[in-house]
Amino acid sequence: MDERPVNGGYGGHERQGGFGPHNLKALADIVGREYCRSHPVDLESYSYDSSPFIYSPAAVVIPGTIEEMAQVVSLCRRHGWPLTCRGAGTSLSGGAVARLGGVMLSTTRLNRLVEIDPLEETVLVECGLVNLELQKALAPLGYMYPPDPASQKASTLGGNVAENAGGIKGVKYGITKHHVLGLELILDDGSLVRTGALKRGLEFNEPDLTGIFLASEGTLALVARALLRITPLPAAFRTMSVVFDSLRDAGQAVASIIGEGIIPTALEIMDKRLIAALEDYLRLGFPAGAEAMLLIEIDGLGPELDAQLARLKEVCFKAGAVSLAEAESEADREKLWLARRSGNGAMGRLKPGSLVQDVTVPISSLPAMLAEVQGIADRHGIVIVQMAHAGDGNLHPHILFDPADPLEYARCLKASADIFAAALRHGGTITGEHGIGLEKVDFMAVEFTEAELGLMAAVKSGMDPTGILNPGKVLPRKWQPRRGKGHNG
Amino acid sequence: MDERPVNGGYGGHERQGGFGPHNLKALADIVGREYCRSHPVDLESYSYDSSPFIYSPAAVVIPGTIEEMAQVVSLCRRHGWPLTCRGAGTSLSGGAVARLGGVMLSTTRLNRLVEIDPLEETVLVECGLVNLELQKALAPLGYMYPPDPASQKASTLGGNVAENAGGIKGVKYGITKHHVLGLELILDDGSLVRTGALKRGLEFNEPDLTGIFLASEGTLALVARALLRITPLPAAFRTMSVVFDSLRDAGQAVASIIGEGIIPTALEIMDKRLIAALEDYLRLGFPAGAEAMLLIEIDGLGPELDAQLARLKEVCFKAGAVSLAEAESEADREKLWLARRSGNGAMGRLKPGSLVQDVTVPISSLPAMLAEVQGIADRHGIVIVQMAHAGDGNLHPHILFDPADPLEYARCLKASADIFAAALRHGGTITGEHGIGLEKVDFMAVEFTEAELGLMAAVKSGMDPTGILNPGKVLPRKWQPRRGKGHNG
Repeated sequence: MDERPVNGGYGGHERQGGFGPHNLKALADIVGREYCRSHPVDLESYSYDSSPFIYSPAAVVIPGTIEEMAQVVSLCRRHGWPLTCRGAGTSLSGGAVARLGGVMLSTTRLNRLVEIDPLEETVLVECGLVNLELQKALAPLGYMYPPDPASQKASTLGGNVAENAGGIKGVKYGITKHHVLGLELILDDGSLVRTGALKRGLEFNEPDLTGIFLASEGTLALVARALLRITPLPAAFRTMSVVFDSLRDAGQAVASIIGEGIIPTALEIMDKRLIAALEDYLRLGFPAGAEAMLLIEIDGLGPELDAQLARLKEVCFKAGAVSLAEAESEADREKLWLARRSGNGAMGRLKPGSLVQDVTVPISSLPAMLAEVQGIADRHGIVIVQMAHAGDGNLHPHILFDPADPLEYARCLKASADIFAAALRHGGTITGEHGIGLEKVDFMAVEFTEAELGLMAAVKSGMDPTGILNPGKVLPRKWQPRRGKGHNG
Repeated sequence: MDERPVNGGYGGHERQGGFGPHNLKALADIVGREYCRSHPVDLESYSYDSSPFIYSPAAVVIPGTIEEMAQVVSLCRRHGWPLTCRGAGTSLSGGAVARLGGVMLSTTRLNRLVEIDPLEETVLVECGLVNLELQKALAPLGYMYPPDPASQKASTLGGNVAENAGGIKGVKYGITKHHVLGLELILDDGSLVRTGALKRGLEFNEPDLTGIFLASEGTLALVARALLRITPLPAAFRTMSVVFDSLRDAGQAVASIIGEGIIPTALEIMDKRLIAALEDYLRLGFPAGAEAMLLIEIDGLGPELDAQLARLKEVCFKAGAVSLAEAESEADREKLWLARRSGNGAMGRLKPGSLVQDVTVPISSLPAMLAEVQGIADRHGIVIVQMAHAGDGNLHPHILFDPADPLEYARCLKASADIFAAALRHGGTITGEHGIGLEKVDFMAVEFTEAELGLMAAVKSGMDPTGILNPGKVLPRKWQPRRGKGHNG
């Protein structure tokens, strides 16, 4: 963690040697000159993702076909160039920055929706298709693709697969891994392979490696195309906001709701700072001075929803709800979700920098964990704004800082580590949906045993023996393949 | 396939050298003398599974704890002994025979149901617990574990996981892979690791290798314990048998049912030979001379079932059903499922030997595929009895032969190959639930590309570099690790 660069000024660019005109020409010969970039302004633009990490690639390529993409991978392998694949660069954990420089491959031109099959309830997409564009194409047909990360306006489905993205609807509909049926992958040597239903399309019992690419963050292979399961749009919704006197009470209400066996579509928690910042930003009419709020949505068939809503209200009031407002119209509903999605924007008004954390804990530990995070903020003398996909036990504490204050930032890093430790102590995990990336790589050895890391390393070394694929991510340095030392390199 | 031994007399035992008293003592020191067997009668008993393959191990060990099991694995690795892990030995593809001799590890003493958690709807089991024993423990609590292979009276949950077992209820409830939340595994060096929810127990985004062990057939690691998802028992059932004038009509009815969006719990097809053999065997009162029959079961809440049953009847009659009988009582229902489960026994009355095939095709190809299998039988002059988990497109042609007639057996092998080819031509697969084992290992190169096999081989070599784990299974010889040549061996 000592090398962590920070947006807003701390960043250290790592300049790449050895990328002369000859190398650039080899890349341009594949993708065309227009789509092979090495101007300092271009390299600067691709040095960032949505995390505080900054590393400059030596060249950026934007292939126009899967075949070009595969040729770039093959070229990188032959030359031993580090290769980082990037969708929209919305990674919050440093997954999409070029830690060792080399080639940055952007998938933005590979954005075709190849096929929608409503009968089989599947879609075949190229890696660079934006999540929201898929939703827009599906809605008129009465379908949705459930995983809806907060980044869905920008983030690509290939990135969603590589990062196993979650979202607000995870509590009912599951996360990316529950919707990926098969993959077309580009291996480290540029060969194309198919896995899962993309290979076979029906019940099968041959070995299936699809699962290991979810959350692999581009370290094992590149996702070229994906066959995804789609879901009929729900017939009806009920949405409400519920105000509590304390964050702990709100957390207790979440535990009670889940404990009662109610499965909302979304169950989000927001603390007082966030409510105030959102109100200041959007003027939505949230109750002034509310200590904590739940946003709850249920979906299904109309008649059963009314019964469920009545039970929900009962549970909330029993857990100490102060007041409760039901969305009366689609506009009302949109307003509530706009609020939830605007958290990052609103917080920019509090402090310019933020570290978004992403731990999960068992639901029963949620009230205690929310209180602990507040304690950690107090102990380090920093501001942490709390929001959570509470129904999943997935906390997103936003640790705010001023980039002009390096001492404050150092305290934020310590608070992050304390939050990780607290989540693990509760039997939780250090990432619910944002991935390991660079940010949490040193904490892998806290969560996993040597044997478990060795197992992951065996798979990594088997698939990327020369260590060119997104080097430095997910696995601690000790477990990374020795670069250039692959047995078939 | 030239080396294929056959039950009933062709079998060639492969005798193991080098397993002297010293080696046996090292094994007995771990599991106790009583549980380390090397008497020829014991070795003979463990030379078989439910396939035609026969290979004798050099020693049989039956550990009493997971720790003993891990120590046996570690010892095998140190000595380079081949190690085959065996549950109940019900593999139909040769997954549980000791192809290269060495140590046979039986899990039958590791049969504890560690924990039932009705709130989380999970069970934690040891690998040797028999599937049906779990069902018996769950039923009084109102739960079931949906995967119900025909072998469920004998087969173990560890074996079910390693083989990704299916069953009759797959069409509605999915197969083993849909119910495994996490695993405790013993790696090739004897170390214990946890994956998935057994490690983490809630939404998480760390790398998850659980999926690769499903259908790995003990070639990557040994399953020690599994965390499985359980499901509430359905409130009510409706079960019926439907008679058709031809197998093709019955297949068409299946395609229509699935095409209509009806998802039965079970949808089984049986041909006239099977119906006659079952009637001869069990005297169930099946209509004499019926050409084909469907067994259909639906489950859910009572009122919706009646509406669904009415639609099912309509679809069946439209597809040419001749007659239809609804089970009027639980005894009636049991009788129908007894029939389905007694297929193997009934066919033993037709011919003493059988090769059970296990291909899948898309549902739309089911009628054509059923007809093609009959054509293959006619062309080779052999008897093939047809049954299928039709709702999954999973055909189980039983290829019958007399072990005293080696020429007939040779024709059966050719028919098997023709069936595999036909399934692949229809966009299907060579195994739906029985696995690759030894039987289909040569056909892997037909279904998969070099790059795809190379990917599987990279994972295998990463996890079992010295090739001790169930050698010879799943991957063709070219793709197996070179025994004893592991980089960390």
